[in-house]
Amino acid sequence: MRGAKIPHETIRRLPLYWRAVNFISAENHAHINSKVLADVVHINPWQIRKDLSYFGTFGTRDIGYDTKKLLQKISDILRLNINQKAILVGVGNLGMALLKYSRFKSYRLDIVAAFEKQRQKIGKTINGVIVEDVSKLNELKGRGYYIGIIAVPAVAAQDILKRLVYSGVYGILNFAPVVLEAPKNVTIINIDIALGLARMPYHMSVKQMEKR
Amino acid sequence: MRGAKIPHETIRRLPLYWRAVNFISAENHAHINSKVLADVVHINPWQIRKDLSYFGTFGTRDIGYDTKKLLQKISDILRLNINQKAILVGVGNLGMALLKYSRFKSYRLDIVAAFEKQRQKIGKTINGVIVEDVSKLNELKGRGYYIGIIAVPAVAAQDILKRLVYSGVYGILNFAPVVLEAPKNVTIINIDIALGLARMPYHMSVKQMEKR
Repeated sequence: MRGAKIPHETIRRLPLYWRAVNFISAENHAHINSKVLADVVHINPWQIRKDLSYFGTFGTRDIGYDTKKLLQKISDILRLNINQKAILVGVGNLGMALLKYSRFKSYRLDIVAAFEKQRQKIGKTINGVIVEDVSKLNELKGRGYYIGIIAVPAVAAQDILKRLVYSGVYGILNFAPVVLEAPKNVTIINIDIALGLARMPYHMSVKQMEKR
Repeated sequence: MRGAKIPHETIRRLPLYWRAVNFISAENHAHINSKVLADVVHINPWQIRKDLSYFGTFGTRDIGYDTKKLLQKISDILRLNINQKAILVGVGNLGMALLKYSRFKSYRLDIVAAFEKQRQKIGKTINGVIVEDVSKLNELKGRGYYIGIIAVPAVAAQDILKRLVYSGVYGILNFAPVVLEAPKNVTIINIDIALGLARMPYHMSVKQMEKR
């Protein structure tokens, strides 16, 4: 069964390869070897070769990987070749940016519905999507939406997750700055925009000390 | 010298602890033990104790950590107790949301200047910050700004980094979907909002298969 023995860290790196090979392929390079890819993504070439080897042998020693085939292969593994529809909850500043974010399309993701609590935003159309009252979230059950994006404040996030899961969602992209509880079959990917920033001053000061 | 022997992964987890203890402290809990914290952040209690032990012993076996002291300690380690000023480059949808993003303030980060290429945005004031012409970026040298936030398209990001570094920036929060090259003394933290999404369909399908 595919997927069963592949390390989480390999799956974590694949999108990075996919993104890089996409750029390289846009520059009309027919082939790419692991060394060139390594330079772009800052990951060891042997690590790249090992990661890709989980999915069969599809590189040639001297000329490297066929960029188109490699893209296709990674897309297949990550299932990025299927159109996905997502529901957004929370149309604050971040939610608004997410609604307008063009790069979700590269991953074949379309935000098809958006929900918000604040009255003055309900009814507005943003990037073709009408903002609906969050109380209507429960009516989504059975409509076949499997991906939910949470962009509400931390205190509201757990309740929204519960309601999304009730509606049939089992993949959650969580932008709320809190670790959420979910049933085992639900995948949660957390993105806290500010959290990465919290490591910055530490690393900056360590690097400055090393410089001296 | 502090910092030298602390694993990168520990530093990566500290902001997560800090965020969680902040929430707990807001609920007026005077103490927290590693088990409770573990439940909140979904990390093993022994891992938490080990991470915190790098910075001295400041928990008590029976009552746990004093939440205020723990917050202070993590802030000290991460240097979150110092006000930081940042420059934003790129005021598209994402940059706009970042300018308005209130949570940067929890990390004592203030965006004090913003730069953009598109003429129609230059001169506008967003959340108290006037959007300036990106060509003026080079004039920042010597003004004492050390943190730069890159929110421009991937193709422009490397050039912006170069100019930020020239201006004296040595900490970069990069939202452009590309791995950037920088001098060794520069810290780059990458946040690609869509990249996390790329792992989602894979994990979702694996979990669904496990369920059967």
